[in-house]
Amino acid sequence: MEQDSVKIALIGFGTVGAGVAKIILKNADHIAHKTGIKLELAHVVDTDLTRERPVQLPDGLLHSDLDKAINDPQVDIAIELVGGTTFAGDLQKRLLAAGKNVVTANKALLAERGQEIYQVARENNRCVAFEASCCGGIPLIGAIRSGLAANKISAMYGIVNGTCNYILSGMSREGKDYATALKEAQDAGFAEADPTLDVNGADSAHKLAILASLAFGVTIDYNAIAVTGIEGINLSDIKYGSELGYAMKLLAIAEQTEMGLSLRVHPAFISYDEPLAQVSGSFNALSAFGDAVGHTSYYGRGAGMMPTASAVVADIIEVAQGNAGRCFAGAAAFGRPGRAPSLCPNEKVSSRFYLRLSVVDQAGVFARIADVLGRNKISISALLQHESESSDKVPVVIMTHHALQGNMEKALEELAQLDVVNASPICIHVVTPPVDE
Amino acid sequence: MEQDSVKIALIGFGTVGAGVAKIILKNADHIAHKTGIKLELAHVVDTDLTRERPVQLPDGLLHSDLDKAINDPQVDIAIELVGGTTFAGDLQKRLLAAGKNVVTANKALLAERGQEIYQVARENNRCVAFEASCCGGIPLIGAIRSGLAANKISAMYGIVNGTCNYILSGMSREGKDYATALKEAQDAGFAEADPTLDVNGADSAHKLAILASLAFGVTIDYNAIAVTGIEGINLSDIKYGSELGYAMKLLAIAEQTEMGLSLRVHPAFISYDEPLAQVSGSFNALSAFGDAVGHTSYYGRGAGMMPTASAVVADIIEVAQGNAGRCFAGAAAFGRPGRAPSLCPNEKVSSRFYLRLSVVDQAGVFARIADVLGRNKISISALLQHESESSDKVPVVIMTHHALQGNMEKALEELAQLDVVNASPICIHVVTPPVDE
Repeated sequence: MEQDSVKIALIGFGTVGAGVAKIILKNADHIAHKTGIKLELAHVVDTDLTRERPVQLPDGLLHSDLDKAINDPQVDIAIELVGGTTFAGDLQKRLLAAGKNVVTANKALLAERGQEIYQVARENNRCVAFEASCCGGIPLIGAIRSGLAANKISAMYGIVNGTCNYILSGMSREGKDYATALKEAQDAGFAEADPTLDVNGADSAHKLAILASLAFGVTIDYNAIAVTGIEGINLSDIKYGSELGYAMKLLAIAEQTEMGLSLRVHPAFISYDEPLAQVSGSFNALSAFGDAVGHTSYYGRGAGMMPTASAVVADIIEVAQGNAGRCFAGAAAFGRPGRAPSLCPNEKVSSRFYLRLSVVDQAGVFARIADVLGRNKISISALLQHESESSDKVPVVIMTHHALQGNMEKALEELAQLDVVNASPICIHVVTPPVDE
Repeated sequence: MEQDSVKIALIGFGTVGAGVAKIILKNADHIAHKTGIKLELAHVVDTDLTRERPVQLPDGLLHSDLDKAINDPQVDIAIELVGGTTFAGDLQKRLLAAGKNVVTANKALLAERGQEIYQVARENNRCVAFEASCCGGIPLIGAIRSGLAANKISAMYGIVNGTCNYILSGMSREGKDYATALKEAQDAGFAEADPTLDVNGADSAHKLAILASLAFGVTIDYNAIAVTGIEGINLSDIKYGSELGYAMKLLAIAEQTEMGLSLRVHPAFISYDEPLAQVSGSFNALSAFGDAVGHTSYYGRGAGMMPTASAVVADIIEVAQGNAGRCFAGAAAFGRPGRAPSLCPNEKVSSRFYLRLSVVDQAGVFARIADVLGRNKISISALLQHESESSDKVPVVIMTHHALQGNMEKALEELAQLDVVNASPICIHVVTPPVDE
């Protein structure tokens, strides 16, 4: 069988890099049989030449001479796996200028400096492929870019950070508090020693910027995404939510609204009836709604050595086949003076809300709370109050119907000032994806 | 922005055809913006020119002159939506010979005569694209072919027929018997007037043949797939299974085993903990396991006008970009003297089983049943017996550990001959996908 051979420079031989080398060395024949593309590692570049890795490279492949790889005219595709947004960005631009197509998992770089990189790619008639940047092994970029290409996407809801989902699952299932669940995620290797970018929602926002840009064919300003992380989540809210039939997830959301595109990352309650509510542990999933296709959903491992490497190698094949290049060249989202979307202001976001108040147990309290909500056009859909041992700290949980976020913020300020409310109210979004029946 | 314009002949203006026209007329600008491909309908061909369709075509587009469309040199892509396996097959071959790339949703044709069609495509340096043939709007072909291309796939488990899933969901959720649930599926438009090919499993087997061929890079003989439909399913088994924590689904299964590739379609119990168990109504889903990626899953509408049209139009774009053509040319599965897989004989399939016996209520019955099972190397994992009003028809439900299907068949014969067993035993597979933790 005729096969196109493709020579690859792998730059960054860390965890994912080792996974990529492992797949290429182990599955190259199988891949060639299935796709007609024969993958060959030509260079593996890293500054650390001695560390033990879980893969044995052929002699002479690993070196630290970046220029040698960049200047090798035989190399068609370079894989950037060094991470970070400064050196990696300059590296990607050098590689593109040297005529290499670039495959990367670097979501932070693409979310923050994507247009700059794409521009260089376009000038050099090359492409950047980044299936591995969003939700690891789930072939999500391909699904959104090509699989749903016929659709106007109306909304996407994603659990796109495995660390957060592992922590929230631990809290939900085993009743652990946040600190304990985080510690366990770290011990199990599902959270970094410094988990800041995961738990504060920034990583989810990076992925949302990339996915929304493809889904809506627009240029996304990463800094315009409203982000709340999971650091402040209290176990009691997870328990109350569960009693009411809701699971708590950190959601990355892109919704076309009448007021424009709403982009946000925040903890949210989602009904147990939704497929997303069933996604537990370090798994990721995304539900996308299209005007023709209706509700579709994608599930799998969002991180880890082999799942991420699976996406990197899929991209290498797509680039070698020329598919990634043509998709990149044709897409409005990349390095073109694309449409900047009209964004929905946060105060205009319409959502249901979960509200927890700690109140004094006395007559007339409910009336005063209901009055504040009513004046701010917020109506109550469910109410939960258990008997309490303390009469001055009675937790009251309220689920609202749809209300404007701006109105809810105003109501929260007013509620905090009531003398019968004795702590800052807790407010969490309740997300109800469109019904497709 | 530069755009590649592509002229399309749509052949077969039925339900899906109308959906395709609707998308192209409505979303062409949006698609051009997102992909760089401008879609243009050049011909819509059907024998029925008068029927009302839910889309208004520009004047002069609809005609019944097939030759005019085939001989139009401006047409790049032809969409075959006439269905069936004889005329449609000849039509696809004529289109390919005339230099058109073919997009189709015709799973029966590709499963039964695919190699013949692919051969003609190859000879003419054209391709056949068929995302719409498997699970409608879910971009499953792309995910298996490209998204998971780096992986050796070990297994796939799919709910790939919406009619059967709608019927089984109706039986499970609302306690309807098979006939009532089928009638309701027909009334709701989720089952044909003649539902034979859906409920007997043939449609699922068609899809399995196509998906397995891509996933494993092999040529699949459709007739080698062992198929059992849902016609014989009894409501009481759904209820007992549910008590034990299992949902009943019609599964299409491809598993790499030590004895070869096992391909089969049959009703199966699957644990409520599995994502597939949560897929209800007319939705479809597929779980695929790869050696690098682990467990991935895909969910959405498997049929219907707009979801299927979504996949057809996605394919048109893929063909226009040249991606479908390159994937087709490179893949071993299409029209090449590909590897025929070594198939696992059905009697060597290892599975857990659900067994329901109607027995006489007397001492020693369990011992005799256990003796038959034990001699056939089948061990019991759970047992369920409710009190019964009748002492000669006591239902006993047994869940087994893994056993060989051949041994189970032998045990069933022996059990049927016991004088304490007074009806044919009911036996249903219990499917346990690999654990990915």
